[in-house]
Amino acid sequence: MYEGAVQELIDELGRLPGVGPKSAQRIAFHILESDPEDMSRLASAITTVKEKVKFCQVCGNVTEQETCNICRDPRRDPTMICVVEESKDVIAVERTRSFRGRYHVLGGAINPIAGIGPDQLRIRELLSRLSDEKIEEIIIATDPNLEGEATATYLVRMLKTLGINVTRLASGLPVGGDLEYADEITLGRAFEGRRSLT
Amino acid sequence: MYEGAVQELIDELGRLPGVGPKSAQRIAFHILESDPEDMSRLASAITTVKEKVKFCQVCGNVTEQETCNICRDPRRDPTMICVVEESKDVIAVERTRSFRGRYHVLGGAINPIAGIGPDQLRIRELLSRLSDEKIEEIIIATDPNLEGEATATYLVRMLKTLGINVTRLASGLPVGGDLEYADEITLGRAFEGRRSLT
Repeated sequence: MYEGAVQELIDELGRLPGVGPKSAQRIAFHILESDPEDMSRLASAITTVKEKVKFCQVCGNVTEQETCNICRDPRRDPTMICVVEESKDVIAVERTRSFRGRYHVLGGAINPIAGIGPDQLRIRELLSRLSDEKIEEIIIATDPNLEGEATATYLVRMLKTLGINVTRLASGLPVGGDLEYADEITLGRAFEGRRSLT
Repeated sequence: MYEGAVQELIDELGRLPGVGPKSAQRIAFHILESDPEDMSRLASAITTVKEKVKFCQVCGNVTEQETCNICRDPRRDPTMICVVEESKDVIAVERTRSFRGRYHVLGGAINPIAGIGPDQLRIRELLSRLSDEKIEEIIIATDPNLEGEATATYLVRMLKTLGINVTRLASGLPVGGDLEYADEITLGRAFEGRRSLT
């Protein structure tokens, strides 16, 4: 409907995740009406990220060097690996300040419908780390949904023969939540995982 | 939380309208994982739109030339002007195929709280069109909300001394809607604007 460049921009924006046709139009007009300098900063942020950002050769996290900040940090415990699906999950765990080991980013979870099996994930890289590094515990922190649980089960089955301590993040009631509104699976898990207070 | 370029991209994306911190992160990772060519197309679409797209010197609509497609089109009725708030509204009216005249884009609506008065809108440009062109009817198609109504009232008061036929789009029940769910103002307007069928 629009003339050339505006329509092209709307089309490109509409391909981004979570951006429908209406938002794409709204963002396109925001870009049109914004300060040219701000918008060239946005355009160059996109280009720069594609040029500079790579994936850590050790853990698969995003980085601008060969290995990421966390893998390079000598203060991190090298005997523990927290296995997550995505780089975003690394940030989520880091925010808790509960974990001082290193990570392994799988790049997704097992999802047969989407055609993602173990070979599409960075599981081979995890195994080679286990033979190279002295790992004592692997914490599986994949998402607590169908795909994440399937991936956790697959990893446990593969790792338990190696004599490494494999753990999984606790499932249970979210802090600040209402017991009444918890779904039955979560509440069931909270019962199974109940802890002694005495 | 992220290293340099990724965080910069998330920050820039987070400034776009309707993009919160979580969506900005999601879009940034989508960009990271996408084909570099697709993403350089997105970046250049942003740059191109800022370089090429201007506002029509006659009506204020977006265009890549001095005047827009519609103002240049000799088949459009030059005696009718449809006054809208934004370029997006031009597209919305065009989609109806109900109007074959030309447009005037105000660039917003009167909104004292946001500091937008008549001087911030392209009302002076509209008045100069009325003295230059032979206009017979002005259709006011500002949004049917507080700001749009205020703008319509202001325009009507200013234009009625000039002897031009000024009309406003009908308010009433949206087609395909339920009478039961119509708000009382809309239903009231539908009564006021009822039409004889005999």
